[in-house]
Parts: sequence; C-alpha cells; structure tokens
Amino acid sequence: MITAGVYGATGYAGYQLVRILLRHPDVGLRFITSRTYAGQRLSDVFPCFCDLTLVQAEDAPLSEVQVAFLCLPHGASMEPVKRVREAGARVIDLSADFRLHDVADYMQWYKKAHVVPELLPEAIYGLTEVYREQIRDAQLVANPGCYPTGVLLALYPAASEGLLSDERIIVDAKSGASGAGRSLNLKTHFVEANENFSPYAIGHVHRHISEMEQELRQFGGHPYQVTFSPHLLPVNNGILSTIYVTASADRKTLINIYERAYVDEPFVHILDDDRLASLRHVVGTNHCVISITQINDRGHFIIVSAIDNLIKGASGQAVQNMNVMFGLDERTGLEA
Amino acid sequence: MITAGVYGATGYAGYQLVRILLRHPDVGLRFITSRTYAGQRLSDVFPCFCDLTLVQAEDAPLSEVQVAFLCLPHGASMEPVKRVREAGARVIDLSADFRLHDVADYMQWYKKAHVVPELLPEAIYGLTEVYREQIRDAQLVANPGCYPTGVLLALYPAASEGLLSDERIIVDAKSGASGAGRSLNLKTHFVEANENFSPYAIGHVHRHISEMEQELRQFGGHPYQVTFSPHLLPVNNGILSTIYVTASADRKTLINIYERAYVDEPFVHILDDDRLASLRHVVGTNHCVISITQINDRGHFIIVSAIDNLIKGASGQAVQNMNVMFGLDERTGLEA
Amino acid sequence: MITAGVYGATGYAGYQLVRILLRHPDVGLRFITSRTYAGQRLSDVFPCFCDLTLVQAEDAPLSEVQVAFLCLPHGASMEPVKRVREAGARVIDLSADFRLHDVADYMQWYKKAHVVPELLPEAIYGLTEVYREQIRDAQLVANPGCYPTGVLLALYPAASEGLLSDERIIVDAKSGASGAGRSLNLKTHFVEANENFSPYAIGHVHRHISEMEQELRQFGGHPYQVTFSPHLLPVNNGILSTIYVTASADRKTLINIYERAYVDEPFVHILDDDRLASLRHVVGTNHCVISITQINDRGHFIIVSAIDNLIKGASGQAVQNMNVMFGLDERTGLEA
Amino acid sequence: MITAGVYGATGYAGYQLVRILLRHPDVGLRFITSRTYAGQRLSDVFPCFCDLTLVQAEDAPLSEVQVAFLCLPHGASMEPVKRVREAGARVIDLSADFRLHDVADYMQWYKKAHVVPELLPEAIYGLTEVYREQIRDAQLVANPGCYPTGVLLALYPAASEGLLSDERIIVDAKSGASGAGRSLNLKTHFVEANENFSPYAIGHVHRHISEMEQELRQFGGHPYQVTFSPHLLPVNNGILSTIYVTASADRKTLINIYERAYVDEPFVHILDDDRLASLRHVVGTNHCVISITQINDRGHFIIVSAIDNLIKGASGQAVQNMNVMFGLDERTGLEA
Repeated sequence: MITAGVYGATGYAGYQLVRILLRHPDVGLRFITSRTYAGQRLSDVFPCFCDLTLVQAEDAPLSEVQVAFLCLPHGASMEPVKRVREAGARVIDLSADFRLHDVADYMQWYKKAHVVPELLPEAIYGLTEVYREQIRDAQLVANPGCYPTGVLLALYPAASEGLLSDERIIVDAKSGASGAGRSLNLKTHFVEANENFSPYAIGHVHRHISEMEQELRQFGGHPYQVTFSPHLLPVNNGILSTIYVTASADRKTLINIYERAYVDEPFVHILDDDRLASLRHVVGTNHCVISITQINDRGHFIIVSAIDNLIKGASGQAVQNMNVMFGLDERTGLEA
Repeated sequence: MITAGVYGATGYAGYQLVRILLRHPDVGLRFITSRTYAGQRLSDVFPCFCDLTLVQAEDAPLSEVQVAFLCLPHGASMEPVKRVREAGARVIDLSADFRLHDVADYMQWYKKAHVVPELLPEAIYGLTEVYREQIRDAQLVANPGCYPTGVLLALYPAASEGLLSDERIIVDAKSGASGAGRSLNLKTHFVEANENFSPYAIGHVHRHISEMEQELRQFGGHPYQVTFSPHLLPVNNGILSTIYVTASADRKTLINIYERAYVDEPFVHILDDDRLASLRHVVGTNHCVISITQINDRGHFIIVSAIDNLIKGASGQAVQNMNVMFGLDERTGLEA
Repeated sequence: MITAGVYGATGYAGYQLVRILLRHPDVGLRFITSRTYAGQRLSDVFPCFCDLTLVQAEDAPLSEVQVAFLCLPHGASMEPVKRVREAGARVIDLSADFRLHDVADYMQWYKKAHVVPELLPEAIYGLTEVYREQIRDAQLVANPGCYPTGVLLALYPAASEGLLSDERIIVDAKSGASGAGRSLNLKTHFVEANENFSPYAIGHVHRHISEMEQELRQFGGHPYQVTFSPHLLPVNNGILSTIYVTASADRKTLINIYERAYVDEPFVHILDDDRLASLRHVVGTNHCVISITQINDRGHFIIVSAIDNLIKGASGQAVQNMNVMFGLDERTGLEA
Repeated sequence: MITAGVYGATGYAGYQLVRILLRHPDVGLRFITSRTYAGQRLSDVFPCFCDLTLVQAEDAPLSEVQVAFLCLPHGASMEPVKRVREAGARVIDLSADFRLHDVADYMQWYKKAHVVPELLPEAIYGLTEVYREQIRDAQLVANPGCYPTGVLLALYPAASEGLLSDERIIVDAKSGASGAGRSLNLKTHFVEANENFSPYAIGHVHRHISEMEQELRQFGGHPYQVTFSPHLLPVNNGILSTIYVTASADRKTLINIYERAYVDEPFVHILDDDRLASLRHVVGTNHCVISITQINDRGHFIIVSAIDNLIKGASGQAVQNMNVMFGLDERTGLEA
C-alpha cells in the first residue's frame, strides 16, 4: 500500500486525481487539502460519494505519506514542495514550478524568481513515455502541462530521430473548459462559452511554450521555435492539437518510427489508417491518440494528437508516474 | 420616432433589449446605463458593432426620452421608476418591483418594504395579450417575469373561461442559463452547467409563484395554488414549462377555446395537431407556442408552453408593450 | 472467473456494458455480437482500444459462457433468450421482453404477442435493491428500463410502507440523448437537439409506464396511475425525474424511511439536507441520488431522482445483477 | 419589390435564406422548392410560423421572379441555373458549380464534367467586398463557399497589396455542425458530436481549397498553396479560421491596410486592439470579424477570422449580393 496525500484537491485536476487515487487498488489516501474549503467534506464541494474531509495544507500529516501530489497554482508549489521533501516524502508536482530546468526561463515565462532553485536539479520532467527511467528513482517529478503532454508525445519520435525540420512548428490547440480551472471568470460563464469558440494567448506568449521548446531542444539536439495558438472549446474535457511540421521522411516511414517508439506503451496509440485523432478517442481515459497526415511531397505533415486534459494531461499522468516510481504496473488504477 | 432610454443595459435582458431597439424602425435610443461599465462602449462589454457609450443612471438625460426601460435587479427599480415618472416619461419596468398589486405580497415574497407604494395603483401588469387595453394608456408597465409569461399564456384561456379546476396546478419548468443572469456563479460556470441538469428552488418557494398566483386568481376569479419546479437547462436561451392541470372539458373544446382566445395574436400559437411545443419553435423570437395533451378522460391535461426567456419573457414583450403604448403595430421591430 | 457474452454490443448500452465487463476483474468476455458490424473489430465502431471482434449472433459460442447479456431491441430478445437458456447459460436481458409478468400487458404496450411465454415465470425483474434475493438464484433477469429504474427507486420505500397515496403520480422526466439510441434520427441530429429541449410521448403512452405501474402495484399492494412526461435533454447521458406525489407523512419521517430502506445499499443515496439531486451527482457512475422536498402540509412532495441512463439505467445495473447472481461483492467492476 | 424564388429551401442554408427574405422589406417571395418535402408547408419541416408551401423544382413559377436563389447540392445546380437563365431571371447560386472559372479545376476537385461551361464566363464570384462592381450587373453570381468567405476576407488586403509571402498559407478552420448539413450522419448524431471535436479532410483535399487558391492567385497575381484543416465544432453555427501567414510588414502597417481596405464595408470589422476574433462576435449576423496577431519580427502572423457559416458564409452574403444587384442599400434585411 502506497500512502499518499493531495494538496489542492478542489480544483478540477486535484479532484480528478483524488477520484483516481480512491479507486487505485494500491493507494491509501491520507489527506487532501484545500485553502478555501478546509473543514468541509469533499462531498460538499463536488457531487461525489466519499468520506474525505479537507484540511489546511499546514495541517497535512506529512509524516504519514510516502508521496505527495501538489495540484497548486503556479508559484504556489515551491515552498510546499520543499516542506514535503524535508519530511522525506516523494513529490509529484502538477504545477509548472519545477518543469523548467533553467531559473532564467522560469523568470522569463512566469515573471517571478524561483525560491528553491536548489531543488531544480533533482526534478525530473514527468513525461512518462520519455523519461521513465529517471522517474523510477525520482524524488521530485514535475508533471508536464496539459498542452505540452499531447504536443510532445506527438513530436518526440520524429524529433529524437532527427527527422523534424528546424523550421518553426505550428501548434493549433483546442482545449475543453476544465482547462481554464474552477475559478469563476466571464470567459467560462456558461452563456459566454456555450455556442462559442475563441482563441486566446496566441503567437509566442502562452507559458506552456517554454516547456515545449525546452523538451524539443532536448529531443532533437537543437532549438525549435513553437508557434502556439490555444483555443477554448465548448466541451468540458479534452485537448486536440493540430500540429504543422516539416519532416524529412514519408508518411510510411514516420508511421513506422512512431509505432516502434510507442510499441510497448499502453497509453499511446498511433492511428495507422485514414482515421484522424479526435477527442472521443480519449476523453475519460489516460490515452493519447496520434494521427499523421502527409500534405504533399515536400515534407509537410499534420500531426493530430488528442488527450484528456485532466487525465493524461494532469492527474492520470501523475498516477502513471507514481506507478513507475513505486514499481507498479504502469496501468494500475488507470484502466477505467 | 419614439425616444427611449435603457437602464441596466449590460445584463442579458438589457443587452437583448438594446439590440431590439437598435433595429426598431421607430425608436431613437437616447441613453443606456450601467453601474459597472459606465464610461465604456457597449461594444467593449458585448461582441456587438454599435456606437453606444454607457453612462451612470444619474447621468441619463431623462428629459430627452418618452419612455424608459428599466432592466435593474429586483428592489433596485423603485427609486428610478419614481424619478422617471417625475420627469414625465413613461416606464416599462422589467424588474419585479411593480408586478404585485399588494404591498404585503411584495413584502412576503421579496422580503423588503415597497418604498413607492403610491405608484402601484397605476402599474399595469404587462402581459400584452391579456392587458392590452390597459397597457395602451399606461404610464407604468410592470413587465412580467420570464417564467410567468409562458405559464400564464398557457393557462389564461382555460382559467378565464372557468374551465380550470381549483386543484393545485403543477408547473415543471426548465430554463436556459441566461435566465440565471450574467453574474458569475459556480452553478453557471461552464464545466458545472454543461452536461448537467438540475432543479432549484422547487415546491412553493420561487418568487415567480407570486405573480402566477396573483394573475390566475384574477383570470379565474378564485385562488389557485401553484407548485413550481424550475430547472436549469444546459442551453443559453428558452423556457419550456410542462404544466399539469385538471380541466372540465375535452381536448377539442380546449383547443377551440385557446384558438379563439389567441386568434388575433401575432405571437401566440396553439399546436392543433400531435406536435408538442419545444424550444426550437421559439428561441430567438417573440413567439409563444402552446400544445395541449389530454392524459385520460378524467380531465387531466398536460399543457406545454415554450418561449425565449430573454425575448418574449423579457425584452421582446417589453418592446411589444411599448408598441402598444405608442400606437404602433405590435409586431414592429420584433419580426426578426 | 465468470465467462460472459454480450449480444448487441454496438448500441450505446451494449458498448457501455462491454467497457464495464472489460475492466471487471472477475469476468472473461467470450463474445460480442452485432448484426450490422459482424466481422469488424469493436475499435472500428467505437473509439476504444481493445482487441475484440464482433460476430453474428448465430456464431456466438454459447457453450463457453456462464452468462449472456442481451442488449437487443424490444421484441428481438425472446428467441435468443430461449436459445441461451437451452444452452444452459444464465441470462440478463436488457430489453423489455421479460419485464412484464402478464402477456396481456406485453401485448397492450408492445403491440406484439409474446412468443416464449413459458419463460416468463422464471424471469425476475432486475431492480437489484428490491429483488436482490430472487436475483441471486435467477436464471433469467429482466433488467429494468432506464426511466423505471430511477423512478422506482425513488418511490419504493414510500410505496412499500403504505405511505404513498393512491392518487395519480406525476413523473416529469428528462433524459440525455444516448437514451434515444444510436440509430440516426432527425430528432437527435446534432443541430436539431443542441440548444433545444422537447417533450415526447407524454401523458399515458410511453411504454415504460407499464413497468412502473406493474412494480408500484407490487410495492404498494394496489394500483397506481402514472402520468409520465419524458423530455429530450441536450446532454449525452443521464436521467433526472421530478416526481410529484402525495404521501401521508412529513419530510423527516420520509427521509428516515428512505435512509433505512437504503442504509446498506452502495448505490442509492438520499440527500438529507437542502441539496437537490442533479445529473452531475451520477453521470458516469452506477449511483442513484434521491432528494425529497415537502411542498406544503397537505402531503404534497417532490421527489427528484437522478441516474446515468446507460449505467444504473442499463449496463451498470446489469453488472450489479450479475455480481449478485454469481456471489460477488455487488460493487465489483462498478466503482470507477 | 424584388420578386424572388428559392430552390432547395429545406437545407439549413436554404431555410436560413427564406427567413431572411421573409423579413426583407423589398422582397416578395414567389416560390420555395424541395424535392423531399414538396407539397408540405415549410412549417411542417421547420419550427417556423409562415404560410409557405414547398413545390417541386419543376413546378416553380419561374416567369414570376426576377431572381432565383439556388441552394442545391454541388453538381445539382448546373441544369437549373440554365433553365432560370433561359427564363430571364438573374441567379444567385449557393452551390460550388459556378465558383471555379476553369472547367479543368471543376473536374479535378468535383470529379465530374461541367455540363454548362458556356455559362461560366458570365458567372461572378460573389465575394461582395471584392467583386461588388461586377456583381452589380451580374446575371449569375456564384456565392462563395462558407470556409472561403471567411478566409478570403482575412487575406484579401494583404494579398492584393503584395504583402503576402508566397510561402504556403496554413488555414486551421473550425465549423459548427450546421455546415455538415441536415442529412443524417453518424458524425453529426448528437451523442457522437457533443463533447467531441474532430478534424476531417485535412491537408490538401477539401474542395474549398480550389476556391481559396483561385482567388488568392487573383488577388496576389501569383499562385499560393493553401494547407487547409477543417474541424467539426460542437456548436450549431459559426466558422472560426486561424490562419498562419508570412507578410512583409509589421502589425501596425497591416492593420492600417486592412482598415483602409474595409473602411466603407458595413459587414467587415478589424479588431485594432488586443481582442481576438471569436464566434460570439458574429453568430446570427452577416458580419465578419478579423484580428491580426504578430508572432515575431520575422513576418509571421496569425490572422483569425470569424463568420456565421449559414449567414455571411451562405444566405446572408447571397442577400447582400442581391441587394447589390438590385441597387438597394447593401444592409437591407441583414441588420438583425
């Protein structure tokens, strides 16, 4: 039995994580925290049937857990991660605070200084399929952002095989409204979002670009520039990314490389026929589905990738990482 | 040219009213007010292409208008109505403040004292199809609530002909999310309302019951008790009310009575075949559609009524009333 | 390991059932059938990641299974049930063909003669919470309809305690579009159903009334007349029923009776505070949530009940019944 | 009074067109045709309140109209256009049959021979803002496709000023489900499309590419290659196109050029601040909203364009063209 705790259990990702952990056969949940709802039962905040009571982060019984998940806002994870590490528990942090290796990048994209830079060297970027070996022994896993998860899985085989042109990569991404969080906002007020569709933060400004560019440079050995256009979809869950790249291969070769790269992966699927990835393939699951379309014979391709933003893009991948860290079958608790 | 002003133009009903007035061939809009957005253009608040700038209510040039529409929250209309009347303009008030004839009823349902009871005697309940003659010369029209509009039109012919049993009437009503307003609320946060459906304030507690019971007593000459169950629908606009009544007639007779009652009405339609009223009949229009289904031979009927909550249930009916008050064809500006 | 097969796996209920059985730890799925898609993989028909291939019903290896689930249309189950029983396997039939005890009722409501009336005496109505003891040893379970499941669970305690007045019962029900099936129909064409809401088959005509009235008579010892108004909701899954009854008790007493009746039930929940049942409580789960609201002191109540139509209203309850029939913990495979 | 007829009035574009024409103050509608529903009233097919009866195309009283609108499928317009022209009426054709100037292009993209090539020289591509002068006197207007309308308006000023690089142009487009028509299809079955989002026909295969490339070549004086990725949005109406281009100018210059190009256009709006185009700007209107975002200082831009696919992308633009052809104010009947 792995003992675990969750900080920030009343956001959408945190709540989804709690639901997965509750049905996970090898996990004992020891605490869940919430600043806003401490003292209330989780079932007062969400329509669930469980017996958990929320506590303040300060009151979390850290000594009782082997692993703590942090579902806190960006910037709010650094101090708690330090405390958890000092208490000896392993950490899976779902915020962006430990995803960037370089404090200058963090300052540039998140506009604040990193307060525990000494912890960065031990942080492993938790893209399970790519960094599984390092995750196994990691004490601190920085769980990837929702957009980067789908995009990086879609580009990793081509980039790491040196087939991805160093031209810029265009990512036209569409996310369900749960990605915008549970905080009230006119943009996600029902009447405003329903029957609407809108881009936001397009170009080279969204913070998830920093992760994508860091990892692509790592995969391919040289820098890439990502143009990134997120859009808000009138659905609850899911991210579909339509990615425009130039690759030095034909479709059949690419498909082969992708299938080989992911042949043993339980959660990544390459569509090898004419079907295209869609949200329905993945919503409610930890799966990532990828399709590859060749546009012409000049190396232009469209790679489409779909994930559930709250599961593979957050809580599911976090549990997948926990399974790796504790030597379990990676699928445990995730095959709903 | 009728000169008009709108108080509270940045709620959903107020904005919809402004849109109708802008395309109304016989109306000149002189001001629109907003407490929150005064100083901004309407196009900064809503995605529209018009040139209007919002002002504070105090700065509204009252002397320039013949009629003022008030789209203010319940309780906030009483003082402004008084000022408008003193300035000599006619008033169409979309709040509940002048709908109840009896100040005791107002106190009971709205939990506050009426501060301008001297104005109540001149207030006409603006259910156009029923009170058209009084509305013609009215200085102050109390525009009906959204739920009561659809329900009362569905019951008026039977009640006024003495065919409606004095057993209680059950109204199971379903409203789109715009009925809950533009103020942020977890209930109408996209992720919470989408793919959801929920009742609220059911039984004998919703304030619109007071209007329904007042008017039914007026129509039928004796009191009725209304059981009222509103539900929140995951759509933007529309109210569908499924009404359970006992009537001393058969369906054919009822249909005849309804058709006769509404024969000259441009905005009320009785479905005389097997079709049932649905939101698609009415959304985006000022129409009300009514179907009548006989359950058995003991006088049990289901009357279904559908309207657009923001149009026939608010702004459209307000303009219909204005057309009556100023001697225009009732349909002017409403036949989009 | 329970060996099982599914007939009609490519409707929404059948597909949902297959998904549940695939993750059920004690079930081995031996075949899935489809008339339309036989020969194809399930993953060609639905966006899933499993290895199953569909076969024609005639080719199902009946001798390999202990239990067969039938997700066939009404009228199409009778012959196959007979064959399965002759082969010695137990049956859980999700059609209506074995729900009514009286062949005359079947003829009246389904407009066709029952062709295997000799099997009716052994058919147990599979409302688990009520008929669990008979289900344990049943060879043939008639899984309840989606609407009746939610309604009957909401009325069972009051009816069986003799507290439910014999006045008629009004059920105003709202179902997600998956309840209308996967066959193409203009009513469930996206543009027609989206942003729409509409009643259908209201009064005393919908076939599910026959089950409700049969069971209520059984619970209460005398006949009830149910007025039933189904509506089509623009959501994928879920049924919420708003039920108007007269009961000879106050709310506190009723709540106590309901809580006692369901105290050991893992899937039925009584809201004992001011909250009302909503779809969000139950969608994606096998739970049923019930709230009880008192309207006045004359015994009028509104009982609201919510279930997922495809799970508790079909496939989930079927698996719950299978768990009972094979001596497993009733929750096995259903706690996702 | 302009006398008009509509062929194909029971598709979504045809029905929307009829609704606009019915409220148009200067149009008298003489006939509406439907192959499937001839003999029925329009109000039997759609939830509207009008008195029109559908006739077979052969029975249309062609001699009574000055202009005929054709809302027929691609390939089905050629013969009827010929008949209408022979009868002396002007034509606005909403199909693709007269959009391509070159019969070889038509054969290549639509896989059939053009049967009335002699009519092509007189066909004017009905992008009102660009070809207004030719439309004025046109006898045959080929109304643009829905996707091309939004894309071409977004590219015309840059292309015609020679600022658009001849690199390929990437158009990532998202359309509401009404764009897929009213014919039943599993892809637009409610349960399949709702909470889903999916690409289709991506790369260089969608037929609308032929129009876009023809017109861009015309605007810019040299060929462009368009990569086009349409996606199906779970909304009823609207198209948003996110367009990736390289331009030899900075944002300020581009904005100026666009504002100058469209300064007198009542239906095209350039967002000159930080706002981005969204569906809510345009759904239900004949407007097109365009935003321009600069990505970097190497000439990379994202142009976002939004229209209502059924109005500006079909019926509204058709009426706008009719207004031009008959010397009316272009906005007549379109300012709802």
